[in-house]
Amino acid sequence: MQTNECVIGIDIGGTTTSLGFVNRQGALTCEATLDTLANQPGETLVSRLYDTIEKQRSTLPPQTILSGIGIGAPNANYLRGTVENPVNLNWGALTNLVELFRGRFDLPVAITNDANAAAIGELLFGGARGMKHVIVITLGTGLGSGIIVNGELLYGSDGFAGELGHTTVDPDGRVCACGKRGCLETYVSATGLCRTVSELLAKRLDRSTLREVSFSQFTSKQIFEAAGGGDSIALAAFVTTGRILGMKLADAVAHTSPEAIFLSGGLASAGELLLAPTRRYLEEFLFTPYKGKVKLLRSELPEGSGAVLGAAALAWHEVGIATPP
Amino acid sequence: MQTNECVIGIDIGGTTTSLGFVNRQGALTCEATLDTLANQPGETLVSRLYDTIEKQRSTLPPQTILSGIGIGAPNANYLRGTVENPVNLNWGALTNLVELFRGRFDLPVAITNDANAAAIGELLFGGARGMKHVIVITLGTGLGSGIIVNGELLYGSDGFAGELGHTTVDPDGRVCACGKRGCLETYVSATGLCRTVSELLAKRLDRSTLREVSFSQFTSKQIFEAAGGGDSIALAAFVTTGRILGMKLADAVAHTSPEAIFLSGGLASAGELLLAPTRRYLEEFLFTPYKGKVKLLRSELPEGSGAVLGAAALAWHEVGIATPP
Repeated sequence: MQTNECVIGIDIGGTTTSLGFVNRQGALTCEATLDTLANQPGETLVSRLYDTIEKQRSTLPPQTILSGIGIGAPNANYLRGTVENPVNLNWGALTNLVELFRGRFDLPVAITNDANAAAIGELLFGGARGMKHVIVITLGTGLGSGIIVNGELLYGSDGFAGELGHTTVDPDGRVCACGKRGCLETYVSATGLCRTVSELLAKRLDRSTLREVSFSQFTSKQIFEAAGGGDSIALAAFVTTGRILGMKLADAVAHTSPEAIFLSGGLASAGELLLAPTRRYLEEFLFTPYKGKVKLLRSELPEGSGAVLGAAALAWHEVGIATPP
Repeated sequence: MQTNECVIGIDIGGTTTSLGFVNRQGALTCEATLDTLANQPGETLVSRLYDTIEKQRSTLPPQTILSGIGIGAPNANYLRGTVENPVNLNWGALTNLVELFRGRFDLPVAITNDANAAAIGELLFGGARGMKHVIVITLGTGLGSGIIVNGELLYGSDGFAGELGHTTVDPDGRVCACGKRGCLETYVSATGLCRTVSELLAKRLDRSTLREVSFSQFTSKQIFEAAGGGDSIALAAFVTTGRILGMKLADAVAHTSPEAIFLSGGLASAGELLLAPTRRYLEEFLFTPYKGKVKLLRSELPEGSGAVLGAAALAWHEVGIATPP
């Protein structure tokens, strides 16, 4: 493995922060994780990350050149280098994370939100290699998205482009944590799937093991397993989810006309259970000129390290020396 | 007026085709119109346009340099230079209009659909000058859109990006001429406004002069005038239209994060009657990070010549010598 030159990818989550050293072929070494300690300020996390990175760095071959740092973080703004009003981190309104890192490392540092990092990771190291127009959807607790246009991540006028999780499915629909109603992520996400099961249990009379579970105890994994066992409520929940996702992805195609859409994150690991109905309804809702032209695919990045690889891909992209294998 | 160097802008419509010579400041001279004669092949139109252009050209000052031709046409594909399956022109599946023009003129020729032409016209000669991320919506019989990203028209993977008229408002909603249901343009367009009036007449009991008019006789102009006279059905129709447009524009912002959205075309001339509710609902439906940041404006291109100016702007953009004043 050629590790002479590498970047550091850092994925900051509400609970855990992961990092690793990534070469230009996307090979990952010296992984480490630490507790984010979300109640402490961003400065403390950067200081702890510095210690961890220096420790890991000392185990690399001596000729290793470190070329940059890429960070994926919630509510991160690429254009400003900031994390703004993060829901899962008690950091306040504004933390200039790029500045904090630059105070510790004499390296190019770039930051973006986790879904954008996933998108650029897919572009450099995953299934979107060689593509110019792509949308990547991350399906976790919420729904994130990164939009690639002309081979570049789209940031828009203020650095926040690509928030498909908060497009509207139904203006009178489910209450969203963002304060709006009927947002896509209230239907299509791990929590959205649980809400859909609860709705289906109310609407239908099918027997289901899910009738024995309280709303608070629902997990998408459990619903996935019930579907695998033929539970009709669980199966219907995946079809409902795929229909709504297919419809809104057809809208997304009518905006940027991607050649492929990638699904990543926990819920995407349901595989064809989610992909098959999504693909069917996407095709049904597509405007005629797009029909038969848009591929719906699963992310090719490994699920465990996709976020760190994405953050590293951002760094490689920034330093301008990315050469997709 | 500096007319030493100019391009030709051509707007091909189902009934009328307009053209004019446009200098780099956007000044328009030697305008001409001809019947499109939609039942004759594209080649015939190009031949007739050639005659008209040569005639107009002979009236220009002798030192005038002609630098390019830009064309706005229905169902035009910029990447392929073609008009594909146009609804209002009896041209068949595929006409390579750029090739036909190149057979007559030794000049750079570019083609795009009318909404994209309107967008690039707004960017070079209108209210979007100096902006990088913009959406232009054209409201006529249907709803067209052109999306500007990083200062460039967005074409996407197959040349058909930006078809917001066929995003879905309601999957069980109004039948659209495209074959789908609930498309945005079935609600927000001149014909959509008429359909909304018909629905409101059924739903409510308000007195209205519109109760004396048959569905076939409804026009958006008449509804506009009724609203001006205080007709509550007509007023409600504009609010309903603005609510749906505002909601879908908020979705559009969550994709490309523009700094401004421009409304143009016949229905946009209803002015604040449409803009005020659209602006209110856009703001209501915007995801928090975008709130208060997106301007909703009327096109600054003159209504009569906007399409020709847009086509000319495409030509200037292509020849790479556009210098916005």
